[in-house]
Parts: sequence; structure tokens; C-alpha cells
Amino acid sequence: MSKKIEVCLTPALIDLYNIEQSIVVVIDILRATSSITYGIDNGAEAIIPVSDVKDCLNFADKGYLLAAERNGEVVPGYDFGNSPFSYTQEKVMGQTIVLTTTNGTKALHLANKRADQVIIGSFLNLDVLCEYLKNQNKDVLLLCAGWKDQFNLEDTLFAGAVVNKLRQSFSYFDDSSVAAEDLYLLAKDDLRAYLRKSSHSNRLAELNIEDDVVFCLQLNVCKTIPVLDGERLVALKN
Amino acid sequence: MSKKIEVCLTPALIDLYNIEQSIVVVIDILRATSSITYGIDNGAEAIIPVSDVKDCLNFADKGYLLAAERNGEVVPGYDFGNSPFSYTQEKVMGQTIVLTTTNGTKALHLANKRADQVIIGSFLNLDVLCEYLKNQNKDVLLLCAGWKDQFNLEDTLFAGAVVNKLRQSFSYFDDSSVAAEDLYLLAKDDLRAYLRKSSHSNRLAELNIEDDVVFCLQLNVCKTIPVLDGERLVALKN
Repeated sequence: MSKKIEVCLTPALIDLYNIEQSIVVVIDILRATSSITYGIDNGAEAIIPVSDVKDCLNFADKGYLLAAERNGEVVPGYDFGNSPFSYTQEKVMGQTIVLTTTNGTKALHLANKRADQVIIGSFLNLDVLCEYLKNQNKDVLLLCAGWKDQFNLEDTLFAGAVVNKLRQSFSYFDDSSVAAEDLYLLAKDDLRAYLRKSSHSNRLAELNIEDDVVFCLQLNVCKTIPVLDGERLVALKN
Repeated sequence: MSKKIEVCLTPALIDLYNIEQSIVVVIDILRATSSITYGIDNGAEAIIPVSDVKDCLNFADKGYLLAAERNGEVVPGYDFGNSPFSYTQEKVMGQTIVLTTTNGTKALHLANKRADQVIIGSFLNLDVLCEYLKNQNKDVLLLCAGWKDQFNLEDTLFAGAVVNKLRQSFSYFDDSSVAAEDLYLLAKDDLRAYLRKSSHSNRLAELNIEDDVVFCLQLNVCKTIPVLDGERLVALKN
């Protein structure tokens, strides 16, 4: 099969793509999809992405952990937010977590409405993700969550890393794939340094999440691919 | 004044930007904004961008030249299409041309509804355009026309060229500006070769417009900046 990779640079563009038969990889490197990958890899039973903080509260009496972040900060009264350090084995093993974030859950829901399969990508599971995509007879859309529907560098760099790894296994790449790959090749020797060029740098610095950023840029520390099963993200049985 | 440059990678994202006080530069390198630049520089009185081929026909009895292109080809029965070679001095001097194109006129109309000023950019007028933007106390949005609302490489490379020239004169650059500039720096020594990586390459080859592509990638052969004055593109009095 001749397979296609496309990169959707922001969720605002998703309606341009035919994804009914495709695998969509949702990418929100800082920090939703990194934390989801880490949490599922650390034995969380499931992570349920919800759109609004108030939807999160609907799950309050079910014994779930509640995670809510808006504009990069934990919502007061919640168990935790979006930092990967909240998703350690001792905190999440066997637990179900209800999560709402600024950009990531929005992208997940948009993809879930139409795609054949929706999975989660991050630098933490890059190789296992690419190996999986290589072995399916499906087109792939890499969906960058962006920042409030705008393009961002970190999600694009990760999309470029995936394109780069899959160049030999796919036959069609759209222009945004070409651009993402070239940006990744420019940045790959020091992703952290490259991201200092980002307009988000000041915002990230203000949030005091430098440790999170460094954590989220690690390669291949997880062996799990989270997949949407109905409304729940669970470990893909591969 | 602390000035801002942003790059809107496709017209589908324009609502994300506050442009009421900004100069918007519309970019459709292959080939609408290149041909418009060349035509106005060659003495065309005005170019009127219209959305539909049928709108073009409303001007048929006014003595205007009619130019219509859809999906890269001249619409049968029209004076010419979108090739810059149609916009030579002997053909356009003193003439008014009514133009409809696939992507460029759409971007122009979207910008015209809201921006403080809408001007036309292409490699043909890069330096004069940048010099103008440097001297205004205005934020700038570089609006890539793209291809059917999708990201494309050639418009992004031009946006990157503008960002690169204006880096010292502006203080804020969004993530898409950073990406566009880095792609331009990768491509600038041979823009034509870089564009062979584009997913549009095959489409362009089929249209047999290689001469047009080479023409549109020339730097600074024009000294004019077309500007929207109402519904008409005319030479900016600078």
C-alpha cells in the first residue's frame, strides 16, 4: 500500500483532512501528551480527556483522580495538573485520571469524532510510536495541538521527528511534513536550545516549568502508546 | 514603538489575529502576488481581485482585461490567467485588469475586511516591501495564501525572507515567524531546488509552468508595492 503522512499544524485546520480511514496522532508536547504517555506507561488504568473544568467535576464522586490545567496552571482544588511529574507510578498505578488541558483535549476530541484510530505521541514514546505506524496499512495524520489554535514550534518539531523516522516507509508527504522534518533536523541536536527561539519561551519561563520542559524532551523513556478507546485513553495492546 | 511580526500560515487561520491596526502582506508566490507585483510595476492602472469567475464577467463591458485561473489554468475565453508573462508592459500599461485566482484573491478579501492596510508581497519586490514595513509604526501580519487553505512551502519561504530582513527592526516574532525564517535560511541559496521537495511539485510540473516558477523566484526585479485602495490594487505612493 502507498501510504501518506500529513501534518495538521493546528486543530483549527483539521477539517481540511480526510481522516476517516486514518490513524491520527495527537501531539501536545508541553505537556498534555507527554504526561499522558508517561501516566499510561506508569500503569494508569485510563486517562479520560474532557473539554471543560466543569466536566471534570462530573467525575468527582467516582474515585477518579482529577487533573485540570488552564493556561498552563493547576486549577485550584484539583489533584494535579499537567506536569509529567504528577504522573509517576506511585501516584497513578491502577488509577483512572480525568484530565482537562488548554489545547490537548480539544485536539483529542476533534480527532475522535472522525478518525479511524486516535493515538498519543510524545518524544517519550517516539520509537515505539513510529514502529507501530510503520506496521499499519493506514495513512497517518500528525495533529499538532498548538497553542490556542496557533502554530507552535514544539509540536511541529515532534511531528518532524516522526516524519523523519518514517520517510522510508511512506510514499507521500505534504508540505507541512516537509517543513516539520526540516525544522526537526535543524533542532534535533539540542531541542531545548532550539525552543528558546519560541515566542512561548517567556510564557514557559513564567510558569516555572523548566524541569517539565526538559523531561518532555527526553527520547524513548516509555514503551507504551496511549490509544483512545471510546472516551478513555488506555494502553494500546500491540 | 515595539513592533510585532506574525505569520499566518493559511487564510483559514486569519481570525486568530488582531489586524485592525496592522499592515497585512498577502503572499501567493505561485503565482498571483508575483503577477500582481509585476503587472503594477509594469504600469497597469489597477488590478481588481474578484472572488469568482462570474464576478469577473460583470466587468466584461467596461474595457477591462479579464484574467481568470482555476486550479492553475486559464479559464477558456479569458484574456489571460495568472502567469507573470501575461503582465508585461506592452500588455498591461495603462490597463485595468480584473483577476480571479484560486487562493490569492480569497486571502486578499479576507484581509481587506479587517486590516488597516493590505499590500502585496513577492520575491520580485522583497527589498522595497521590507524597507516600507521597516519605516511604518505598525505591526505586520504576513498572510500566506496557501493552497486550498493548506500550508504551502513557497509562501512560507517568502514570509521567512521578510522576517529575516526585518529581524533588527521588530521586537516580537511568533512561532510561525521563527519557523518560516529558518526554512528560508535553509532554502535561500537555491529556492527552486528546495521547492522540489514540495508536495505541489508534481502539480506544478503537470501545469507546465516551470518558466513561471523560475520567474517568480527572482529577487527584486520590481520597485513597486501594490496596495489595496478600496477594491482595487494600485501602486503604493511611498
